[in-house]
Amino acid sequence: LPGKQKMRVQVPPGARISSRPRLPSVILKPTSAEQVSSVMRICNERKIPVVPYGTGTGLEGGSMSLKDGVCISTLSIEGGIDELNEADFDVAVRPSVTRKQLNDYIRNTGLFFPVDPGADASLCGMCATSASGTNAVRYGTMKENVRNLEVVLADGSVLHTSGNGVRTRKSAAGYNLTNLFVGSEGTLGIITKAVLKLHARPQARAVAICHFNTVADAVNSVVETMQMGTPIARIEFMDHVQVAACNSYSKLSLAEQPTLALEFHGQNDGEVAEQAKFVEICSSNGGSAFEWATELEDIEKLWTARHNAYYAALAMRIGASGFTTDVCVPISRLAEVIVETRRDLDKMNLRAAIVGHVGDGNFHVILPVFEGDEEEMKVVYAFSDRLVRRALSACGTCTGEHGIGVGKIPYLLDEFGPIGVEVMKSIKRALDPNNIMNPGKIFA
Amino acid sequence: LPGKQKMRVQVPPGARISSRPRLPSVILKPTSAEQVSSVMRICNERKIPVVPYGTGTGLEGGSMSLKDGVCISTLSIEGGIDELNEADFDVAVRPSVTRKQLNDYIRNTGLFFPVDPGADASLCGMCATSASGTNAVRYGTMKENVRNLEVVLADGSVLHTSGNGVRTRKSAAGYNLTNLFVGSEGTLGIITKAVLKLHARPQARAVAICHFNTVADAVNSVVETMQMGTPIARIEFMDHVQVAACNSYSKLSLAEQPTLALEFHGQNDGEVAEQAKFVEICSSNGGSAFEWATELEDIEKLWTARHNAYYAALAMRIGASGFTTDVCVPISRLAEVIVETRRDLDKMNLRAAIVGHVGDGNFHVILPVFEGDEEEMKVVYAFSDRLVRRALSACGTCTGEHGIGVGKIPYLLDEFGPIGVEVMKSIKRALDPNNIMNPGKIFA
Repeated sequence: LPGKQKMRVQVPPGARISSRPRLPSVILKPTSAEQVSSVMRICNERKIPVVPYGTGTGLEGGSMSLKDGVCISTLSIEGGIDELNEADFDVAVRPSVTRKQLNDYIRNTGLFFPVDPGADASLCGMCATSASGTNAVRYGTMKENVRNLEVVLADGSVLHTSGNGVRTRKSAAGYNLTNLFVGSEGTLGIITKAVLKLHARPQARAVAICHFNTVADAVNSVVETMQMGTPIARIEFMDHVQVAACNSYSKLSLAEQPTLALEFHGQNDGEVAEQAKFVEICSSNGGSAFEWATELEDIEKLWTARHNAYYAALAMRIGASGFTTDVCVPISRLAEVIVETRRDLDKMNLRAAIVGHVGDGNFHVILPVFEGDEEEMKVVYAFSDRLVRRALSACGTCTGEHGIGVGKIPYLLDEFGPIGVEVMKSIKRALDPNNIMNPGKIFA
Repeated sequence: LPGKQKMRVQVPPGARISSRPRLPSVILKPTSAEQVSSVMRICNERKIPVVPYGTGTGLEGGSMSLKDGVCISTLSIEGGIDELNEADFDVAVRPSVTRKQLNDYIRNTGLFFPVDPGADASLCGMCATSASGTNAVRYGTMKENVRNLEVVLADGSVLHTSGNGVRTRKSAAGYNLTNLFVGSEGTLGIITKAVLKLHARPQARAVAICHFNTVADAVNSVVETMQMGTPIARIEFMDHVQVAACNSYSKLSLAEQPTLALEFHGQNDGEVAEQAKFVEICSSNGGSAFEWATELEDIEKLWTARHNAYYAALAMRIGASGFTTDVCVPISRLAEVIVETRRDLDKMNLRAAIVGHVGDGNFHVILPVFEGDEEEMKVVYAFSDRLVRRALSACGTCTGEHGIGVGKIPYLLDEFGPIGVEVMKSIKRALDPNNIMNPGKIFA
């Protein structure tokens, strides 16, 4: 199988997982939605679990097999980029198409697909996990960027979630099935085609770095800017530990302080310059002078460093593997939650870096851990548990963008309560009465 | 009951509606979600139909009673604007709060709520119908502007669709229940509270009118502009008949040609001026010189005329009532569909005006009709039927923003096919097994 599905998942203390990860009984590589449909019909009749597997880049174990059963590799489905409608800003892709492949293909059209989770994931897989990332603050997550999905359901029937062939910018026809399947993590059906929204590629881009004395100063600058309605394309936060890790890993020489990395998009330099009034806000919050990058090469260098934040954090501790958290809170609560989290890390003597899609209130703690060290992992899990509870008590969610997968199942109940989870389960039962679709994910 | 629920609905020829509109057996005015919950528990046990009723401003009969049963007036629920979080750009409202009331309340905060369907509807009702309107091209529809909903389900339990108290900008936790309930037209539960996204109020606004020789010239100007990524706030189309009607009704003196009315938003005059490069594109498509309005009074006058388009069209024929269509197509197909529709109208000798949210590909034909004239209504229904089929064959939908309600039920099947409708029905059965929630809407 392609990709490297991370087989470790964050299991909070006390959580019971019905089964441990195992190899699937059989891996099938269908070449068409019709073949997927045939497989599903047979598996449904015989109640055989089916796990869809794309690029294997998810972080919450969504494509792990937990029971004996069939793994369907969706990348073998033929047909790549099926229809490109430039005037309508949309394109249809099959599961084998990744984010970077799509953007390469449409490079000369003046359009681009903005959702960027870092990994070069399958776009259909990004639909399944409701992926997000650095550009979401301006362009939205997958929830806002899918027009229609072709889905093979548990019984083998083929659904078009926004209607047959429909690709309008909006619709009020019936239930919003598209956004039910976006983020359903393979538990309701297998996505075999996605019609995605495209956006005008910015003609002008500028990237800047700004350092602050405190986390609160950095975050408050972001809140004030967003209040101005400035549509910044990316607002990424790195705490002093993450900056130090990136300096070391990516050969940068940034000041090792709470830092914002910003990207401005416009159709011309004037538009970008208008947005950059943000500089004044940062300055009034004690921010440093902006370090600008406007050349494509410099911009790519900076964002590559940001995308490599995970590996940079791992490199702080040789031989360690990574443990990542993913809470999201309202931005007004973000500074306090990050500050408390850093205090908790320091108190527990845990080495960790913090990065955040701060414009969305979403941040990750990246801990380089030795998984074999049971004592250490206990401390890590307890820290992660406190972090999720801190986020929930601040009107937040246990997962901003990685999904529930296997490890966050208990937190779904904490977040939604029994009624919310029961509503989700009743939908699951309605569409997959034999519970064959990716069983053990989202729900126990 | 407040408001004026339009009791006429567009029923295509051959459609069977199980029951005709009637008065509800009883109208209840609960003062809290708990009271709604008590009512639902009793009605569910006794299988009594429940129809939620807000401001009664929907256009597809969504709050009509079709069977003997209970009508719940949601406006009596106490508590208006519950929580305003300026830094997070969100606010919680109870069903009695209308769009205009909210915007008046937050006038001094620098924020506003952009979704504007014309009518001063209940915001919770706008969630139920997935309302949209003139600002959607920049700010999205209700689908993109709701953070969380409190919903009383058929069995009386109270659901928080994005989790208890969660109001983050994004989340990947479980199924997207919020967007399942947005647009569910009261068939899955009664919305008793909504947490809405707010946006930065534009500091600078400009409105312009531009006339074109042909519909295609006007629409092509829009397509080219959107390709530039220019975030125009409103792009409204009126055909020559609609302009003439508005001239007469609202005492304007616009050239009676295919016309675009545009609004640009920015945080300063410079930003607005950047957007107005659109002028060149219109000019290259044969558009007239722009007639600008920048004073608030002139802006309001123009949009009031646009919002009164419906009444202006009715006034073309004294004593007539209105029949409105609502198709939406990809913008690349919009010009051909409008041109064919106008040809059809002229061929059938039907007096009608065309207005459109052209940036979204959504347009309405407003026909002043004499409902008592059976022969005329046959012609009107046949025209409406051809229009929907024309839209569906152009990758479009039968309803861009008004919903399915009662009259468009057969078209939902045409649009989604039996599998799509069956998936929706299975969700309906899962959440409302006794079919008491607004029965006869969306599905027969």
